[in-house]
Amino acid sequence: MTSASTPLAIVVLAAGKGTRMKSSLHKVLHPIAGRPMIEHLLASAQELAPERQVLVAGHGREQLEEAMGGRAAIAVQEPQLGTGHAVQQAEQALSGFEGDVLILYGDVPFVRAETMRAMIERLHASDSPAAVVLGFEPEDPLQYGRVLAHDDGRIAMMVEYKDASEEQRACRLCNSGLMAVKSADLFELLGKVGNDNAAGEYYLVDIVNIAALEGRTCAVIVTDDPDEVGGINSRGELAAAEARWQARRREQAMADGVTLIAPETVFFAWDTQLGRDVTIEPNVVFGPGVTIADDVVIHAFSHLEGAVLESGTSIGPYARLRPGAVLRQGSKIGNFVEMKNAVLGEGAKANHLTYLGDAEVGAKANIGAGTITCNYDGYFKHKTVIGERAFIGSNSALVAPVKIGADAIVAAGSAVTRDVADGELRLVRGEQLVKPGWADRFHDAMKKKKAEQKK
Amino acid sequence: MTSASTPLAIVVLAAGKGTRMKSSLHKVLHPIAGRPMIEHLLASAQELAPERQVLVAGHGREQLEEAMGGRAAIAVQEPQLGTGHAVQQAEQALSGFEGDVLILYGDVPFVRAETMRAMIERLHASDSPAAVVLGFEPEDPLQYGRVLAHDDGRIAMMVEYKDASEEQRACRLCNSGLMAVKSADLFELLGKVGNDNAAGEYYLVDIVNIAALEGRTCAVIVTDDPDEVGGINSRGELAAAEARWQARRREQAMADGVTLIAPETVFFAWDTQLGRDVTIEPNVVFGPGVTIADDVVIHAFSHLEGAVLESGTSIGPYARLRPGAVLRQGSKIGNFVEMKNAVLGEGAKANHLTYLGDAEVGAKANIGAGTITCNYDGYFKHKTVIGERAFIGSNSALVAPVKIGADAIVAAGSAVTRDVADGELRLVRGEQLVKPGWADRFHDAMKKKKAEQKK
Amino acid sequence: MTSASTPLAIVVLAAGKGTRMKSSLHKVLHPIAGRPMIEHLLASAQELAPERQVLVAGHGREQLEEAMGGRAAIAVQEPQLGTGHAVQQAEQALSGFEGDVLILYGDVPFVRAETMRAMIERLHASDSPAAVVLGFEPEDPLQYGRVLAHDDGRIAMMVEYKDASEEQRACRLCNSGLMAVKSADLFELLGKVGNDNAAGEYYLVDIVNIAALEGRTCAVIVTDDPDEVGGINSRGELAAAEARWQARRREQAMADGVTLIAPETVFFAWDTQLGRDVTIEPNVVFGPGVTIADDVVIHAFSHLEGAVLESGTSIGPYARLRPGAVLRQGSKIGNFVEMKNAVLGEGAKANHLTYLGDAEVGAKANIGAGTITCNYDGYFKHKTVIGERAFIGSNSALVAPVKIGADAIVAAGSAVTRDVADGELRLVRGEQLVKPGWADRFHDAMKKKKAEQKK
Repeated sequence: MTSASTPLAIVVLAAGKGTRMKSSLHKVLHPIAGRPMIEHLLASAQELAPERQVLVAGHGREQLEEAMGGRAAIAVQEPQLGTGHAVQQAEQALSGFEGDVLILYGDVPFVRAETMRAMIERLHASDSPAAVVLGFEPEDPLQYGRVLAHDDGRIAMMVEYKDASEEQRACRLCNSGLMAVKSADLFELLGKVGNDNAAGEYYLVDIVNIAALEGRTCAVIVTDDPDEVGGINSRGELAAAEARWQARRREQAMADGVTLIAPETVFFAWDTQLGRDVTIEPNVVFGPGVTIADDVVIHAFSHLEGAVLESGTSIGPYARLRPGAVLRQGSKIGNFVEMKNAVLGEGAKANHLTYLGDAEVGAKANIGAGTITCNYDGYFKHKTVIGERAFIGSNSALVAPVKIGADAIVAAGSAVTRDVADGELRLVRGEQLVKPGWADRFHDAMKKKKAEQKK
Repeated sequence: MTSASTPLAIVVLAAGKGTRMKSSLHKVLHPIAGRPMIEHLLASAQELAPERQVLVAGHGREQLEEAMGGRAAIAVQEPQLGTGHAVQQAEQALSGFEGDVLILYGDVPFVRAETMRAMIERLHASDSPAAVVLGFEPEDPLQYGRVLAHDDGRIAMMVEYKDASEEQRACRLCNSGLMAVKSADLFELLGKVGNDNAAGEYYLVDIVNIAALEGRTCAVIVTDDPDEVGGINSRGELAAAEARWQARRREQAMADGVTLIAPETVFFAWDTQLGRDVTIEPNVVFGPGVTIADDVVIHAFSHLEGAVLESGTSIGPYARLRPGAVLRQGSKIGNFVEMKNAVLGEGAKANHLTYLGDAEVGAKANIGAGTITCNYDGYFKHKTVIGERAFIGSNSALVAPVKIGADAIVAAGSAVTRDVADGELRLVRGEQLVKPGWADRFHDAMKKKKAEQKK
Repeated sequence: MTSASTPLAIVVLAAGKGTRMKSSLHKVLHPIAGRPMIEHLLASAQELAPERQVLVAGHGREQLEEAMGGRAAIAVQEPQLGTGHAVQQAEQALSGFEGDVLILYGDVPFVRAETMRAMIERLHASDSPAAVVLGFEPEDPLQYGRVLAHDDGRIAMMVEYKDASEEQRACRLCNSGLMAVKSADLFELLGKVGNDNAAGEYYLVDIVNIAALEGRTCAVIVTDDPDEVGGINSRGELAAAEARWQARRREQAMADGVTLIAPETVFFAWDTQLGRDVTIEPNVVFGPGVTIADDVVIHAFSHLEGAVLESGTSIGPYARLRPGAVLRQGSKIGNFVEMKNAVLGEGAKANHLTYLGDAEVGAKANIGAGTITCNYDGYFKHKTVIGERAFIGSNSALVAPVKIGADAIVAAGSAVTRDVADGELRLVRGEQLVKPGWADRFHDAMKKKKAEQKK
């Protein structure tokens, strides 16, 4: 039987308390690159098309249930008596399942699909191992349990660091904790694991030595990237994982033809899409859901989320694009402009100090500085539609729902509450009241008042 | 006599010219984390409750006098003839004082109180040293004077690098310059220091060798953090000290339960207070006086100073909070919003392009995009009071002093100059003047004009 | 003949395809510090006052021609058959020229003038080398061709890495590719270069071994900064070169008396001019053409381009200065303010949410929050002139062309379309319409509607 045709189940351990995070948010839900860490892991696992997914939860399991929304069975581990005990809680959720079981950790989110696949393939190699352990060789192996293995990957012995001899400690191959086991073997071996240790816990890793005692072979495969098995137990480690993710993504962007003037100041989201000959100036932050076409310039200090930028567009500096912002070809958003659920037509411009919310702006329209679409009346959101080539004078308020016609002009400072027809000028403005000398008299009076206050 | 009961005086040397700073601001007044470097030092020294504080000033002493505001006696060293000479200038300010004297340097600002305390304690150890030197072991000890000491900390000899033999140079224990001496010994020993050296200066360190010649013991204690005795002599070193301070503060914030997506882009001030489960996005700058409660989100590109954020609030991106900004529970400040000396009530929102200055905003009020509180008439500042649940339409100008009642509505684009009653609608708007076809005719005329100009 | 009196020609090779850049912009036109990389190189070469400049172009040569604008002769290499072949294409452009030829690379932009000069000088040394090679000693010399040379710099042999013996590879002196050759020798030697190699290309470096076979001496000089001969072949290398440039510039700024609180977050342009006692907060981006006088404060998140800041000015946070922005002594630009082609007079202020375009603001004028100069009518730009000490009320729109007199006051929320005289008050405002109870009735109706929608 080949691995390709064997059903797969994944068991993700996520019952730990995560004390060091000092958070009321479950550890595995803390985001990296704008996505909860466990979702990174599940997305990689999806590439292997698992038939079943079990999440072993303990502390804060309600948060996990809500986050999973039925995508995984939730097995409850209560109390938490070690990793072996945790996997045992998945037994019921796996009842009736026959195939391979891959054991993952919710706080070890960056294991690659290819690594998972290699573990499964090793499980089906000709020497038929009872279990496959994922090993890694960290720069400083000091605290980790060691995998003592033959050159062909067959494991001689797993040994905890504290129990290891000097010679054993000199071995740099460490146990990541990840394991692949056939379902038929898994629970049988787990049943034999004891808790005769200082912590009184049942350790998953013990199944390897137990299998060996029974004359079974277990095998290790070794990742070439120790970072992929790095666990996240504190906000410091969370930040370090984010930094590694960002560094890789920036390298990839540059390799794909994106100029990053200062790569270390650009923060991508997990799903950012980037075209070629895109230039990103320093200090740009991407939230999820952004797609950037070719030949786009993103000036410094811009913040994008859920936005689509077609080719030849430019934004910023200080552009803030929120979900639903769409820039058609060659359009431009300038400084201190916010855009939300709004489409800016081809070649249209909104260059300064503007809020475009729930709006459609026609091609080549010009939105003057300080224009505000008044989309909210305190209860409902309404839409503003601006025609092609329309010219919205500065400091105008467009009180939605409202429609400005093609080629129409709204005079500066107007609060427009009724539709403007094509080619029409709309002017909403009080009288120009002139009070000659008033200012001079005011200045005199105020200076006198200031002087009096100082007395 | 124990050190706890002995009076303490600190003498801070700050007479140097600071030439390499190339600044008209006194070197020790350059800020780190928003606080003059000497204030960091004095704050640490305060933990030892010194009875007297003397600042030895030379160049730019007026600036120091003003900065101290009487908190320390200013002794003038003019001309500057070395560190020993500098300390001698403090003699008058210490007249009548009997106790321990701790000699510090204004440009070595990050010596910890515990280190100072350890120096004083060593001074009172059973071997009664005449002086206690603070030593350090830098990675590269090349240029520093060496402390040749016995294992128990008794000093055999102090030797300048240039006078040291190869063997002496191999010693990595260096002299930081900081010293603790009993007042009775200090000036007696200083009186014996000569200036028979290349620079013709009187060196404080010489008292150690003089004491030794007189059969007195001197002792060294060694800091476990060489960074704490790092001097700041240039803007480059200033930036490096700032970077070290920020790195430590970020680590602490994360350990305390704050998520920093990109720690290296967040800049704290010396007194920033942070709650738990606070998330700080990339690129946030804190000035002094900020207090953040639990469960607060600070979006990217925000700048805070003298602000209080209660729990459940969120600000930014691009929020600028100036001194006196207070956000009550669950309130929200959005993009391109400035707030100064203003209180935003529970659950109230000011989401876009707004200036709230000298204002009180009631709970659940909604401040529309582009709202400006006109708090200044060119001479005086006035207050704006906005009631609970009031709705301020976009692009409104509230001309203070003015009061908007609870549940009141101000129509978009209004310049409100008179109070608005509870539940009232205030509409300040000119007529909607409609000029059908005007824009079309304007476009034709302008196109013709453009065409003519090109001829 | 001394080098000083020998005419110089430079030949810049720029015919490569730059495939790894994945860009439709020619590789050598990608900017570093706001300036195309080839311009950095040409600027250094200008210091040697070359009589002729030849750019050897191939792919994308139209872009190069346009960028050069006649400053260099363009020689076309089509097809590209190696560096030797490339230099041969320059022969026609150098016809009639007798002197030294310096061969540079458009994608090796940071060779210093002093290094070029040293190469030329070596060419005129007493041993009269036929060619001078610029060598470098990288940390990892693995992939580079080696220069096997005597201690006096005479070259024994040039050897490609793949052809080198173990012993030869142990030599760490590598060939940068840059070369100085007398014109008389250059094309004669090039004519003897063959293409009998794996790539079938003509290599410039071969002239050294050919000269040696003819009994001529060639010499190498070695740069003390391997970074200066670093080539840029990918966006990753572009970013790395930018980072090196910025790091050097920041060090220089600090040495000159500029405080950079977080140097790594400040991005200078190639021509940024900075005074003394300038403070630059974190996250500031300079485009080209900025001059900053003494005692200026640039607050965080500011973006400057083509701007002049006189002494005592301050800007930001979130100030955006575009070309033509001039701040006279002691003036101030605050947050979310954009300035373009505008002069702010002595002591004048524009503190919040403002756009000043095509404007002149008099001394001590106060521009209120939310003020917009409406400089564009969709066809032409017009000017706004504001007098000394004028007070522009918040949220005003100044519709250019318009002039506000000295000491004049514009009331908040006014759209000013006609000139305002000195000392005059201009008030453009609709009636204050009061609708008591209207808001309460609106709230009731909307709440009912919301409730109905939920049914």
